[in-house]
Amino acid sequence: MSLHAESPGRAPTAAVIGLGSMGFGMAQSMKRDGLDVIGYDITPAAVDRFAAEGGRCAETPAAAVQAADIVVSVVVNAAQTEAILFGPGGVAGAMKPGAVFISSATMDPAVARDLSQRVEALGFHYLDAPISGGAARAAKGELTIMASGSAKAFAAARPALDAMAAKVYELGDAAGTGAAFKMINQLLAGVHIAAACEAITFAAKQGLDLDKVYEVITASAGNSWMFENRVPHVLAGDYTPLSAIEIFVKDLGIVQDMARAERYPVPLVAAALQMYLGASGAGMGRDDDSSLARLYAQLSGAKLPGMDKA
Amino acid sequence: MSLHAESPGRAPTAAVIGLGSMGFGMAQSMKRDGLDVIGYDITPAAVDRFAAEGGRCAETPAAAVQAADIVVSVVVNAAQTEAILFGPGGVAGAMKPGAVFISSATMDPAVARDLSQRVEALGFHYLDAPISGGAARAAKGELTIMASGSAKAFAAARPALDAMAAKVYELGDAAGTGAAFKMINQLLAGVHIAAACEAITFAAKQGLDLDKVYEVITASAGNSWMFENRVPHVLAGDYTPLSAIEIFVKDLGIVQDMARAERYPVPLVAAALQMYLGASGAGMGRDDDSSLARLYAQLSGAKLPGMDKA
Repeated sequence: MSLHAESPGRAPTAAVIGLGSMGFGMAQSMKRDGLDVIGYDITPAAVDRFAAEGGRCAETPAAAVQAADIVVSVVVNAAQTEAILFGPGGVAGAMKPGAVFISSATMDPAVARDLSQRVEALGFHYLDAPISGGAARAAKGELTIMASGSAKAFAAARPALDAMAAKVYELGDAAGTGAAFKMINQLLAGVHIAAACEAITFAAKQGLDLDKVYEVITASAGNSWMFENRVPHVLAGDYTPLSAIEIFVKDLGIVQDMARAERYPVPLVAAALQMYLGASGAGMGRDDDSSLARLYAQLSGAKLPGMDKA
Repeated sequence: MSLHAESPGRAPTAAVIGLGSMGFGMAQSMKRDGLDVIGYDITPAAVDRFAAEGGRCAETPAAAVQAADIVVSVVVNAAQTEAILFGPGGVAGAMKPGAVFISSATMDPAVARDLSQRVEALGFHYLDAPISGGAARAAKGELTIMASGSAKAFAAARPALDAMAAKVYELGDAAGTGAAFKMINQLLAGVHIAAACEAITFAAKQGLDLDKVYEVITASAGNSWMFENRVPHVLAGDYTPLSAIEIFVKDLGIVQDMARAERYPVPLVAAALQMYLGASGAGMGRDDDSSLARLYAQLSGAKLPGMDKA
């Protein structure tokens, strides 16, 4: 997070495609760090929010990237990333020669490798750079980024990486490796949320004191980052989405597809994915991912905090 | 860990039934804390080891408990606990009136409740007190104990609890609650070990740098206590049993049986249990529980550290 505005020469120009909860914070962090930032989002409300904070916005993705040294793509998945690049009005036809495309969506490593080859064939650099940390850390420029790509891609992306991240893991010189690391993290995160919900609702079914269960487990060998982070939502009966069920419908779906293609069995992922699908099918897809606890409760008659209100 | 030898009056006498890796350390901790300890184990080698460290041993469980104010049962499961109490030569026929039986085996809460009622009907106290922390912490008197039972049971057990544990959770006045908390912990621990092995071997299958995966995941939202603790065994290719596959064959089996009886679905436990069963069936039952990684490797052709030696 060095101040590039104070460096000799012109500050780099960065285009941010996607101004949702993550992209908004990443754009703000780069602006704060002295980069010349221009944003784009398909949703007018997202554009308005960025403009209200003094952000400069473009009317189309192509217009946003025309003068950019760095393009940061902060969209939901591989399909949106491909559309941004190669769809009608895609940025691949508008980027400056030598610019770098930083792709932060979670995706199958094989797709990241394919996109990188197509982008590099056009004379641009590609950095495979999935992000982790949530909206609050995005706003503070304290994300974790799991990145791989050529030395030139890293060099071109550096001002943006420095502004957006507290920690950049440099995982190799080929696109796909960053994506693969992110998928390993998502495999574990998705299974651990499901395990946390299976466990805390089983405790409720037995009539245990759930606050005490939280206290004991977080101090014991059964703890996980996700148990510690998500179970408080269940204890508060508050399923306001911080990260939604549909995120893991998507991400465990990617893991399962990757594993199937590689002939690798993932019984825990498969079991967890069925629960996310069930929660989505039962109408909770846009609710917080800790809603798996409500699904376990519905399936078993267990009583969770806040359920008396229903 | 107060020094009871320095308290006014006679130091309490504690009998330890089961001098395995946990019971040995617990007996040592009580001896160090000034209790008058007498041990018993069915295995002569375990008795010899305790005697070699200056421990006093009895020839039979009944002889061990005759003068004991406190009986600490450190056996593997509910069946062994029942046999110690009510089998031929069982201690229930030999304990002093008013003595407390501290049961530390992991078991179904319903069984703990049943045992406690039968023990209390004979005029003894019963403390449902599963332990957590491993052999090293047992030896240092730094276990975590998840305990429930009557106020009189807690009072009678106090000198032993103080000597054996760094932390005693007092979870209620009825036996079964301690066991239920332990089962919630085992549910999570067993699933997290399986998830860790599914993830790290999937990373190996993709040819990722496994040391780097460990570094990134332990700093990310995918982390768990078990990932952090067990994956180093996989990275070292060292499956020397610290805790064996068979422990979770047993403990997830208990969780699954409890859940079935209560009509509560546990899809993650069920998937993990199948993997522990597969590892046991493939001949790894007495190896470290991180051997699940070797099972995933066998099923997928992934190469893990140390496998070239095979």
